[in-house]
Amino acid sequence: MMAPHDDKSEVAEESMASQAPNRPISTIVFIIAMQTEALPIVNKFQLSEDPNSLFPKGVPWVRFHGTYKDLNINVISPGKDTVLGVDSVGTISASLVTYASIQALQPDLIINAGTAGGFKAKGACVGDVFLASELAFHDRRIPIPVFDLYGVGLRQASSTPNLLKDLNLKGGKLSTGDSLDMSPQDEASIIANDATLKDMEGAAVAYVADLLKVPAIFIKAVTDIVDGEKPTTEEFLQNLAAVTNALDVTVTQVVDYINGKCLSEL
Amino acid sequence: MMAPHDDKSEVAEESMASQAPNRPISTIVFIIAMQTEALPIVNKFQLSEDPNSLFPKGVPWVRFHGTYKDLNINVISPGKDTVLGVDSVGTISASLVTYASIQALQPDLIINAGTAGGFKAKGACVGDVFLASELAFHDRRIPIPVFDLYGVGLRQASSTPNLLKDLNLKGGKLSTGDSLDMSPQDEASIIANDATLKDMEGAAVAYVADLLKVPAIFIKAVTDIVDGEKPTTEEFLQNLAAVTNALDVTVTQVVDYINGKCLSEL
Repeated sequence: MMAPHDDKSEVAEESMASQAPNRPISTIVFIIAMQTEALPIVNKFQLSEDPNSLFPKGVPWVRFHGTYKDLNINVISPGKDTVLGVDSVGTISASLVTYASIQALQPDLIINAGTAGGFKAKGACVGDVFLASELAFHDRRIPIPVFDLYGVGLRQASSTPNLLKDLNLKGGKLSTGDSLDMSPQDEASIIANDATLKDMEGAAVAYVADLLKVPAIFIKAVTDIVDGEKPTTEEFLQNLAAVTNALDVTVTQVVDYINGKCLSEL
Repeated sequence: MMAPHDDKSEVAEESMASQAPNRPISTIVFIIAMQTEALPIVNKFQLSEDPNSLFPKGVPWVRFHGTYKDLNINVISPGKDTVLGVDSVGTISASLVTYASIQALQPDLIINAGTAGGFKAKGACVGDVFLASELAFHDRRIPIPVFDLYGVGLRQASSTPNLLKDLNLKGGKLSTGDSLDMSPQDEASIIANDATLKDMEGAAVAYVADLLKVPAIFIKAVTDIVDGEKPTTEEFLQNLAAVTNALDVTVTQVVDYINGKCLSEL
């Protein structure tokens, strides 16, 4: 539906995308929804906040960036809601910052890192860090043929079998929705998605990365057991700080592993 | 959280926004989710498809534009899903095209036009066309203080009391979610939102328009009665074509009304 044209930035983008598998990864964009999740990673890589925002005036989106080994690392968060002051969690903010970050930075790889609920019936424990293999939505029910599949929005993460094996990470499917709780309808869809993990951003980041043809991986640390006895909210808030430390350790291992490698080597 | 700087386009944007109430509206962006909803409006104003897309390569987003009276009219749709071929309905696509359209066109006014479900208990009938006064989400439940309000995401449409009165439009609140059906949890939130209308994009368009400080109004035609006896999907598909004609008539009246007026006169 789109006419071809010769805009130079698009040629650059295309050539970058087609070369990506054959040269070492250079620019990484982390999309991280919450400040509590982002700060340990910002500190670990000694990133600094961008004083001249890449983003339009008035948006609360935040970029930290710096160089680590051979990598240009960006940690981008949707920031605090301008009215309410809480982290701008959920699929809409995640989609917008992913889109704007790709437009501004043309990264070789998107890494969506954050916390998630886990299902013990699928082998998840609090503190586990997963690399999600597939992503889908569980709160977009459109019972019309084909629209139903659009709603589910199943997408694959970039295939990184060596990363999974060499770092001994757990693999599993991730289901995304805009609620922290889980309604019976959400639960039915999560089961249909065969998900081990439940979060509020992953499938949205996957949608935008796929739309713009940027490889993406998803690192999710389990803060709470959804099919356990404790209420999600309580368990989430209780474990958030400790689990972000586990996330931070794995993210560092992943970045060290990626350094010097091509996408096809991951 | 954003450092001030002197980028010229931002100065232009700021000056445009601050002048907007005092000069006639010039550039309008319609955000319309479905092709069936968009085409009658495209034809009515004899708009033509943009051969050099404003948008990044690979996205299915479509822009039709042209001049009508003193207005520069753009009809922008998220287009057909690149994999599945169905209209890219819902909040994520609507957010992305609203964001990208504002960045590219700096419109004076966003008009989100489309179909919606209506509640007969709140006075809605099939074929009614409403101007939504308030917008909120009904499928973003985050039961943590303040995050709960973020999830609901209540926003006001731009105040247009003269438009409402002079065109004899119905007013009502609109509740948005990514499902065409309605779960019991959705219903409870829709009641809490005091909504007359239920759609899949409105509150997302309102969120982005508010983030970037662009005035926005919401014209919604009722395709199906949510609290009636017929199943939503069946009624929606049955009435879609006829109701888009009613939508088209009202949209034309609204555009004729807006022509030559400032935002503060609406």
